[in-house]
Amino acid sequence: MLTISIDLGGTYVKTGILHHGSILEHGRIKVKNNLDFDGLLPDITKEVNRLIEASGKSSTLLDGIAIAFPGLVDSDKMKVTMTHKYPTAVDFDFIAWAQDNWNANVALINDARMAGIGEWQAGAGEGARHMAMITLGTGIGSFAVVDGRRLRGNGYRAGNLFGHISLDINGEVCQCGNLGCAESLASSWSLPELVKKDDDLKPLVAEDDSIINFKWLFDLYRQKQPGAIRVAEYCMKVWGMLSINMIHTFDPQVLVLGGGILNSADVIVPFIKKLVVQYSWLNADEIEIEHAFLGEDASIVGGYYLLKEVLTNKKCLASGKLR
Amino acid sequence: MLTISIDLGGTYVKTGILHHGSILEHGRIKVKNNLDFDGLLPDITKEVNRLIEASGKSSTLLDGIAIAFPGLVDSDKMKVTMTHKYPTAVDFDFIAWAQDNWNANVALINDARMAGIGEWQAGAGEGARHMAMITLGTGIGSFAVVDGRRLRGNGYRAGNLFGHISLDINGEVCQCGNLGCAESLASSWSLPELVKKDDDLKPLVAEDDSIINFKWLFDLYRQKQPGAIRVAEYCMKVWGMLSINMIHTFDPQVLVLGGGILNSADVIVPFIKKLVVQYSWLNADEIEIEHAFLGEDASIVGGYYLLKEVLTNKKCLASGKLR
Repeated sequence: MLTISIDLGGTYVKTGILHHGSILEHGRIKVKNNLDFDGLLPDITKEVNRLIEASGKSSTLLDGIAIAFPGLVDSDKMKVTMTHKYPTAVDFDFIAWAQDNWNANVALINDARMAGIGEWQAGAGEGARHMAMITLGTGIGSFAVVDGRRLRGNGYRAGNLFGHISLDINGEVCQCGNLGCAESLASSWSLPELVKKDDDLKPLVAEDDSIINFKWLFDLYRQKQPGAIRVAEYCMKVWGMLSINMIHTFDPQVLVLGGGILNSADVIVPFIKKLVVQYSWLNADEIEIEHAFLGEDASIVGGYYLLKEVLTNKKCLASGKLR
Repeated sequence: MLTISIDLGGTYVKTGILHHGSILEHGRIKVKNNLDFDGLLPDITKEVNRLIEASGKSSTLLDGIAIAFPGLVDSDKMKVTMTHKYPTAVDFDFIAWAQDNWNANVALINDARMAGIGEWQAGAGEGARHMAMITLGTGIGSFAVVDGRRLRGNGYRAGNLFGHISLDINGEVCQCGNLGCAESLASSWSLPELVKKDDDLKPLVAEDDSIINFKWLFDLYRQKQPGAIRVAEYCMKVWGMLSINMIHTFDPQVLVLGGGILNSADVIVPFIKKLVVQYSWLNADEIEIEHAFLGEDASIVGGYYLLKEVLTNKKCLASGKLR
């Protein structure tokens, strides 16, 4: 089974080509303007062709392309239903695009879900009947498997919107319009405001605030900069309380923490574990809290398992189309 | 199929005997001391015998007894695993109790879940593939059906602990030890403190604070008492934000609001609907918000459907034991 995975981020598009789930070749495209999906599409098409060539396989062998999208997705119709990034991707016909270019199948899903599938099938949640995942990055994504099944819900939102759970009903309005959402309290997009409000950090970014990100913050935290300790501990409290809400909600065996911010997992994971023991209903031995095993590859690997499921459902296996 | 349902509340035990799901007779026992489960048990046993007699059926026809319990329950072993009310019920052998007394089967489940099953099978959520329910009373209970299945989770907690979702991570410690739980912000047990902190309400309860309950509060609200407006609107905001979190989490078609506080549904339901339209990601036409149809009978009816499921699983149907 030859498959391609494409993870549409806001800054980069990550790609990979896989043979029976093993990654043969990686790729990465810089996004110039995430409001211009039509302008990005030729680059993605070119990247798919490059990956096929690099794999040394014939393009006629390509079974499918899995696309992780930063927004809400109808994974039956393979259509984007709601997104702030790539707004012109709404209603784009991914099925026709893959069919016309490579006679290949397509699977479209929310990006946190595709990473979650990777971790569930071949990462920190492998073998779990109950798993939840939070991805901390520009925004906050989430994914849940309960009783052995990925949650879907009425509009493909179940388990997927934990970044927009209110953790502070007295808080300010989030970009999304809700009050005190987790990602409005602590995520890469909301970090600059936290930094600029802190008296100890403010002078460091007065000349150039483009240096602000969580890597920068956690480096200062390790140097015991007082403002960095304050802001980092506040953010970790937000993620810890979000983790507790996720645990109380979905009752997983394993809670997986992923996303770019977890590059500082050495600080973040122990902090969250401590909060969970302190405040949640569960004892430490009832819940594993793990940093994603697959790191950046979670969505690439997840795409393979997703396509396998989609193709199985299409009974392509039965008809002998799969290689 | 002749079944009995028992709903163990902190103040009353509600009971009913049903023939193929139709209630033949109701009952209610006053709880003298909810810390004394052993003292209550003979009263429950007597009540079961009374119900059978009142139904005009032979006790040999009794197929099963469904028990709704205010705490966490292992519904495979039919054991209570955690509870603040009735602590001595932990590890009580309900199976032996029903077997020895009436040669009947038993089903034990969390109380919000049993009410939720009633509403799902024969109430406001009938026919829904995706339903969530919040019960507002002494505490806050919850229940969720996603993709046509009741959520269970690793320790029977999935969908069941929404009363202990943090809605204010800067808030005070709840009775349960978590920070800013929904039920610590607004439920019958936390209402007296809200009332006594309000300058307009405080004088009304100075002599006798036992008059404080939500019926009293909403009666004053309808009379436009300024303190009652303030406290009631705060509580409704808590429940509205909890509803939004529940909708964002489980993505239901129908959100059912039940429990004793919903006796003031005429005020509460429209208020919550307004908040959901204002702050949630869903449009008004994507989600129904309903007051529980079955009212006080939700758990009684739910017990019948639960027993039916338990008995089917035991293949009693196949062996011809059911009548």
